[in-house]
Amino acid sequence: MIKVGIIGAGRIGKVHITSISTRVKDAVIKTVADPFMNEETAAWAKSMGVEHTTKDYHEIIDDPEIDAVLICSSTDTHSPISLEAIKAGKHIFCEKPIDHDVDRIKEVIEALKGTGLKYQVGFNRRFDHNFQAVQAAVAAGKIGKTELIKITSRDPEPPSAEYAAVSGGMFLDMTIHDFDMVRFLAGCDAEEVYVQADSLVDPAIGKAGDVDTAVITLKMKNGAIAVIDNSRRAVYGYDQRAEVFGSEGMVRTENDTASQVQIAGANGLTTEKPLFFFLERYMDAYGKEVTAFLDAIKNNTDTPLGVEDGLEPVLMGLAAKKSWQEHRPVKISEIG
Amino acid sequence: MIKVGIIGAGRIGKVHITSISTRVKDAVIKTVADPFMNEETAAWAKSMGVEHTTKDYHEIIDDPEIDAVLICSSTDTHSPISLEAIKAGKHIFCEKPIDHDVDRIKEVIEALKGTGLKYQVGFNRRFDHNFQAVQAAVAAGKIGKTELIKITSRDPEPPSAEYAAVSGGMFLDMTIHDFDMVRFLAGCDAEEVYVQADSLVDPAIGKAGDVDTAVITLKMKNGAIAVIDNSRRAVYGYDQRAEVFGSEGMVRTENDTASQVQIAGANGLTTEKPLFFFLERYMDAYGKEVTAFLDAIKNNTDTPLGVEDGLEPVLMGLAAKKSWQEHRPVKISEIG
Amino acid sequence: MIKVGIIGAGRIGKVHITSISTRVKDAVIKTVADPFMNEETAAWAKSMGVEHTTKDYHEIIDDPEIDAVLICSSTDTHSPISLEAIKAGKHIFCEKPIDHDVDRIKEVIEALKGTGLKYQVGFNRRFDHNFQAVQAAVAAGKIGKTELIKITSRDPEPPSAEYAAVSGGMFLDMTIHDFDMVRFLAGCDAEEVYVQADSLVDPAIGKAGDVDTAVITLKMKNGAIAVIDNSRRAVYGYDQRAEVFGSEGMVRTENDTASQVQIAGANGLTTEKPLFFFLERYMDAYGKEVTAFLDAIKNNTDTPLGVEDGLEPVLMGLAAKKSWQEHRPVKISEIG
Amino acid sequence: MIKVGIIGAGRIGKVHITSISTRVKDAVIKTVADPFMNEETAAWAKSMGVEHTTKDYHEIIDDPEIDAVLICSSTDTHSPISLEAIKAGKHIFCEKPIDHDVDRIKEVIEALKGTGLKYQVGFNRRFDHNFQAVQAAVAAGKIGKTELIKITSRDPEPPSAEYAAVSGGMFLDMTIHDFDMVRFLAGCDAEEVYVQADSLVDPAIGKAGDVDTAVITLKMKNGAIAVIDNSRRAVYGYDQRAEVFGSEGMVRTENDTASQVQIAGANGLTTEKPLFFFLERYMDAYGKEVTAFLDAIKNNTDTPLGVEDGLEPVLMGLAAKKSWQEHRPVKISEIG
Repeated sequence: MIKVGIIGAGRIGKVHITSISTRVKDAVIKTVADPFMNEETAAWAKSMGVEHTTKDYHEIIDDPEIDAVLICSSTDTHSPISLEAIKAGKHIFCEKPIDHDVDRIKEVIEALKGTGLKYQVGFNRRFDHNFQAVQAAVAAGKIGKTELIKITSRDPEPPSAEYAAVSGGMFLDMTIHDFDMVRFLAGCDAEEVYVQADSLVDPAIGKAGDVDTAVITLKMKNGAIAVIDNSRRAVYGYDQRAEVFGSEGMVRTENDTASQVQIAGANGLTTEKPLFFFLERYMDAYGKEVTAFLDAIKNNTDTPLGVEDGLEPVLMGLAAKKSWQEHRPVKISEIG
Repeated sequence: MIKVGIIGAGRIGKVHITSISTRVKDAVIKTVADPFMNEETAAWAKSMGVEHTTKDYHEIIDDPEIDAVLICSSTDTHSPISLEAIKAGKHIFCEKPIDHDVDRIKEVIEALKGTGLKYQVGFNRRFDHNFQAVQAAVAAGKIGKTELIKITSRDPEPPSAEYAAVSGGMFLDMTIHDFDMVRFLAGCDAEEVYVQADSLVDPAIGKAGDVDTAVITLKMKNGAIAVIDNSRRAVYGYDQRAEVFGSEGMVRTENDTASQVQIAGANGLTTEKPLFFFLERYMDAYGKEVTAFLDAIKNNTDTPLGVEDGLEPVLMGLAAKKSWQEHRPVKISEIG
Repeated sequence: MIKVGIIGAGRIGKVHITSISTRVKDAVIKTVADPFMNEETAAWAKSMGVEHTTKDYHEIIDDPEIDAVLICSSTDTHSPISLEAIKAGKHIFCEKPIDHDVDRIKEVIEALKGTGLKYQVGFNRRFDHNFQAVQAAVAAGKIGKTELIKITSRDPEPPSAEYAAVSGGMFLDMTIHDFDMVRFLAGCDAEEVYVQADSLVDPAIGKAGDVDTAVITLKMKNGAIAVIDNSRRAVYGYDQRAEVFGSEGMVRTENDTASQVQIAGANGLTTEKPLFFFLERYMDAYGKEVTAFLDAIKNNTDTPLGVEDGLEPVLMGLAAKKSWQEHRPVKISEIG
Repeated sequence: MIKVGIIGAGRIGKVHITSISTRVKDAVIKTVADPFMNEETAAWAKSMGVEHTTKDYHEIIDDPEIDAVLICSSTDTHSPISLEAIKAGKHIFCEKPIDHDVDRIKEVIEALKGTGLKYQVGFNRRFDHNFQAVQAAVAAGKIGKTELIKITSRDPEPPSAEYAAVSGGMFLDMTIHDFDMVRFLAGCDAEEVYVQADSLVDPAIGKAGDVDTAVITLKMKNGAIAVIDNSRRAVYGYDQRAEVFGSEGMVRTENDTASQVQIAGANGLTTEKPLFFFLERYMDAYGKEVTAFLDAIKNNTDTPLGVEDGLEPVLMGLAAKKSWQEHRPVKISEIG
């Protein structure tokens, strides 16, 4: 039985608490820590089988009974808490991104060396049934040699301009998932990135120094060309598609919908919109990623997304930012 | 060069004139006859390359230069004109049904014997790209042994009750196409029919002694079970689908649409309705059936739909009518 | 906290144990009883949080702490155990069918009268997201007045002829779900049924006195016509579709698939097969039906599927059997 | 009756001859000229109603009876013949591109000024039912303000490296159609282009100085971002899709297929591939573009694609080439 501590009981922390509580047999959540822990959250956590709640995450770090830590707190705390947890000998599941600062990620990488501790980054989309089926088809050679990769990733609703200002920018906050997906589908790293972007959805986002609409072209190390299109607002719902094209065919995935129902009337045939947002679309994937992390501990195997997988998308995001600012293609090797 | 005469310049006559004029190389339309021939129709016919127009179809029957006759006049004239045309040594393309009276169809069959003349019945749907692909898959063994056949056939708009009263009833006027389709897809004749039907669309049709909604179950001679569902009104357009299910799989066809376009908005994803009605859906099939008829003449081969193929669906229609009236399964052999 | 006892720990009993254990907050499973209870099952039950296991279901019936019983044992025990449980004052969730004998179902109905106990029949498909969306569209008037209902229900693999012989026949064993679905979608009972059926999949099923392929036509009390097509073998997976057609449109549902992925290659575009069988397709629906049952107890409301909803599909099944045997349409009122 | 001369009787010339012969009422083809005119082609032309065939296109230019000329000869002859035809007072339909040299296109533009002659460029895809429906939805405001435009354009089979070497390169030979499509869907010109491209399909194409795979990003003058992905080889057929995304929704089109048939078997559900290549996909569009040209003459209205519409895609193609060569974003204004 693996004893788990969860740091951060916000939206994504709650998702992981629910997953472990209802889906994972060999793990229990001993402690949940959140600086804003209140009675309501504590009661809910208790109902999910959590033994203890606290405002101080050190109760987790310092607890010798706890084997593994899930870091679901704010982004700026990811790397410091990672370092503390490594020092305390805990396995770590860390939400993305590990940090916006490359050096601090490298510090975490260094600290992990030789410890034998498991580290997994929260790129949940790799556990989505659709993207997994795309990747499996590519890996099985069904489309031959990969030549083009296309990812569509559009949020249903834009964040506030205030959030945009502190988020690190769209490339590190939102596109970072797509950068990971490109690596997952290509099976290799990127070499160069070029960005064409603008604030077409909300000018306030532009004034805050960020963008909300982008087309991002990547040259991959295996020679394939990849392209991501992003928007912060798709009124028809969370649009998450991918297509991989190769010498012997093409594989693509459409969105998930709430049902397979079609209504035909005088105005046409209507089907359901994509599921609204990430909680609806990726709930099952969140469960699978945590299960995979706990399985890696149990079986002493590698996690499917190691700490290096946390670094590369950040490099891509920083290169994208630079490309946008300098209006030119930027090599990933220019960063860090 | 085959010289053709066309009897009847109504909607379907015009379709055949257009097809021969624009699609068929080795045939010319010498004469078009219609009792209501007027200046407008005559001018249009001329613009399509028709040499001569008349009110009297005997100018076609009696013209030794004319090789082939298309009978597109009212249903009650199909078998008498067929007999006259056979006597005059013309090849015949006859719109469905040859007659509502089985004995009169048999008279035509008798008259044809030994003449070597080609006879084709106008079951246009056999020439539709979708139904041909379904039939080809079945014939190629892709679904194994056929077990179930399902046909959906719904008109966009009901006829007037007056029309219903004189049309011979829905089974002989509309379902007759589906009876032919069942034979086409099954590759055999029907043994028994059972009808559950009502006038749900327009009570006036019920008062006129007819139905507008039906589910028709058939036992086929090869052991398969078939089912047709009919409605005289589908507000979303002409609904023409088929599905064949067998020991090794299933093949089905959806409707044709004007485009492959999908619009996603806040209310869902909308695609186009089926094409409105038979002229939109089957225009290409009409061209192919006439080409097949003229090819059979040119190459001296069998037409794809001989005079016997005109009899069987009428037997099925009459059996369906009897089943509905007597509220019991009726064997096709009880008819005629 | 509702205390639950589960009688029968076969495939479907295990599904309910899992659902209650992982999805339902306010209920605990106190006891699971199965005549074939063994160590393995007992250990598994314990891991799911079950307090006690036994071979004797009377330990459940006689336990005053237990509020609700789930009857998941063999069909012949459903009505006797229902009667015992009613006498003991337990709420009851009973797998379908309550009995093959109409009188014994009526006995259960009688016994329930005035007790205030909740009774729910296990027609899980009413809780499927797709069928619920179809029903909701119909209920919301999106297709106007219902005229035609079509249900496709095909199992991936046939049962053994031995099973067929003791199952009560396909109509009571398999089609009974579709009879319930017809009532759900029509919003009313059936008046008459006609069956065309055969043993096309496995002649041994025919020798055992049963069928494996059928087209079943129903006249509903609201005037609509319904048709069900059944097969015991669809090599491409569990085929569960429905279509409702009305005066203002049509609503239909396709199957669920494991992913939305499409692969395009030199031989065409391939998408996934339907999910394999009922455990894959309806797992979520099983969870929802049990939750609905426990909610009805908690909130003291009607269950969504009362004991009368258990009777009607059995009447339809018996009428279908009679129709097949006597080769004629049979009124539901002829039964019972 | 418009008298037409056709210069060039290759593949595309034959398409136009067929269209005018079978679809256009008010036009006749008086003369077809081709330097390689032979007996077979002459006989075929005659069967299509062409009055005269010749090796010398001056017989068309010098014929005062001929109103309109279709230039379907090799690319290098487009602008010189255009100039000759303008001098001779003929209306002109010219296959794309008018020229690879911007100055020579401008010469044609100059020569046309004040003549009142009609000039149409052969961007056939604007007449495709699918792209027209996409453009119509955008123009009708169904997706709000346009933010992203995506075009997928992949040929089924690569050209020979020899052809690639003389074609002007993929951007001017193949992508030029997509550049026109971007303008059609955006409703404005492009401002800047960036190319990521390679020869992934055939290294010989790379050695010949060309590419066969590309992702092309464009900034449009209305602020929208566009992206085109190209490949010279899609083994599943001619892949021609478009998607336009905006503030209130998204519209996209899938490919056309030979039928709407789906086959379900043990390995999945298979549908048809896209139609093979441009002759299959765009045959109807070719007919519509020629009809539009002849209608513009008849009604003395503007052609839907004037001579300036022939210039802009060439500028885009040259800018794309420069972007690829210099590996940087290039403004369209840098060209010409």
